[in-house]
Amino acid sequence: MVEPKYITSKDNPRIKEMKKLQSKKYRRKLDQFLIEGAHLVEEAMTHGQKIHALVFLDGYDHARYDDQEIETFIVNDNVMKTLSSLETPPGIMAVVSYAAPETDGRRVLLLDGIQDPGNLGTLLRTADAFGFGRVILSLDTVDAFSDKVLRSAQGSTFHIDITSMDAAEAVQDFDGTVLATDLEDAVPLEEAPAGDPLMVILGNEGRGVSDTVLAQVDRKIKIEMPGASESLNVAIAGGIIMHHFKA
Amino acid sequence: MVEPKYITSKDNPRIKEMKKLQSKKYRRKLDQFLIEGAHLVEEAMTHGQKIHALVFLDGYDHARYDDQEIETFIVNDNVMKTLSSLETPPGIMAVVSYAAPETDGRRVLLLDGIQDPGNLGTLLRTADAFGFGRVILSLDTVDAFSDKVLRSAQGSTFHIDITSMDAAEAVQDFDGTVLATDLEDAVPLEEAPAGDPLMVILGNEGRGVSDTVLAQVDRKIKIEMPGASESLNVAIAGGIIMHHFKA
Repeated sequence: MVEPKYITSKDNPRIKEMKKLQSKKYRRKLDQFLIEGAHLVEEAMTHGQKIHALVFLDGYDHARYDDQEIETFIVNDNVMKTLSSLETPPGIMAVVSYAAPETDGRRVLLLDGIQDPGNLGTLLRTADAFGFGRVILSLDTVDAFSDKVLRSAQGSTFHIDITSMDAAEAVQDFDGTVLATDLEDAVPLEEAPAGDPLMVILGNEGRGVSDTVLAQVDRKIKIEMPGASESLNVAIAGGIIMHHFKA
Repeated sequence: MVEPKYITSKDNPRIKEMKKLQSKKYRRKLDQFLIEGAHLVEEAMTHGQKIHALVFLDGYDHARYDDQEIETFIVNDNVMKTLSSLETPPGIMAVVSYAAPETDGRRVLLLDGIQDPGNLGTLLRTADAFGFGRVILSLDTVDAFSDKVLRSAQGSTFHIDITSMDAAEAVQDFDGTVLATDLEDAVPLEEAPAGDPLMVILGNEGRGVSDTVLAQVDRKIKIEMPGASESLNVAIAGGIIMHHFKA
């Protein structure tokens, strides 16, 4: 096992470096991000993610991690609080680099401009549940590796292949049926063709899927609503559509 | 029209009274709550809610509200900030008492211990979309009239009949088919009986539907997931189920 280092100051250079990962800029620059709590750390370890460092609160039972050849830090409450995004910091955190798992790419979810971290995390968790093994994020979608998105994805981040790229290019490159949600000239979900491979596109919470992307899709689909609500939350719409086309 | 009162101090007694509505205790006590933004105020007005007061930021164009016989306040930025829960306060707020609309009660959603305000708001919005006109909240479910829940419900709060009561009693009182989500001894959603009247029960984010409630249901149902995710977010599960049984 690696001998743990004890750190009691939040001004320690290694801690300051980790703390920088709270910003998207540094996550991109270093290709690393922070995860919090035993569940996410377990998920990252069992799904082939690259773990750079483990951080334990002093007193946390870390015996089951001691056979890992990973740099390990034991810190006090003060240091844990500075690294954590939670009001009640967890006993365990880790510094991770994302490694996308292999997928067959037969069911793809393309997210075009999702802005709410909770929506993105829930959509990743739902894509994972229904066998949409590849998720493409448009360049203006929020970062998938912030604490909020990671938390609401509940570990699904490490089960699916998440990539960022230009949305219109992603559609052009895709060889299969492409469906996008829209309100105009759309067919009800139940009448949509169930292609294989299949790409489902969901859009921004306010403006929906962008016109340049819509211009390239095979069919526009909608979810019929008998009630008085004007629209569905985008994650709910995604849940209903991915459940309908589940692998 | 009612002559507006100008208020420039957040220590004004009427403003202090309104600010108290940010706490659940006072909302319950006064049977009133605050809503923010033109969309929610419009929804409240057009759906028969009791509006006690309108609050406008100085300079906001309130001409279209001038024919309403409602107490009106015009306030500065500082006062608006003290009343609003948003970082960028809206130009319009209102003090409202909830008035449940008439519903036929043929599709009922029972929420047993939902804790996340975003989940509750999204479930209300989705119930509205799919004709679940009555939503019953167990006594340990979060308050439906907090700013977060109201915001994510996007006005659906005023389209459906929301009541709080003991969950087990609600099931006993219900005359129709009762389905609850559970993982054990559950039939797939597609094989569940489509009763009319129908009650769908969703449970707490962590522990699910409570045992005393489960003991009374007609059938336990589950959503089959081919992927690696262990579970669905409760609002996503609710969306899929209510879409399946939509009015």
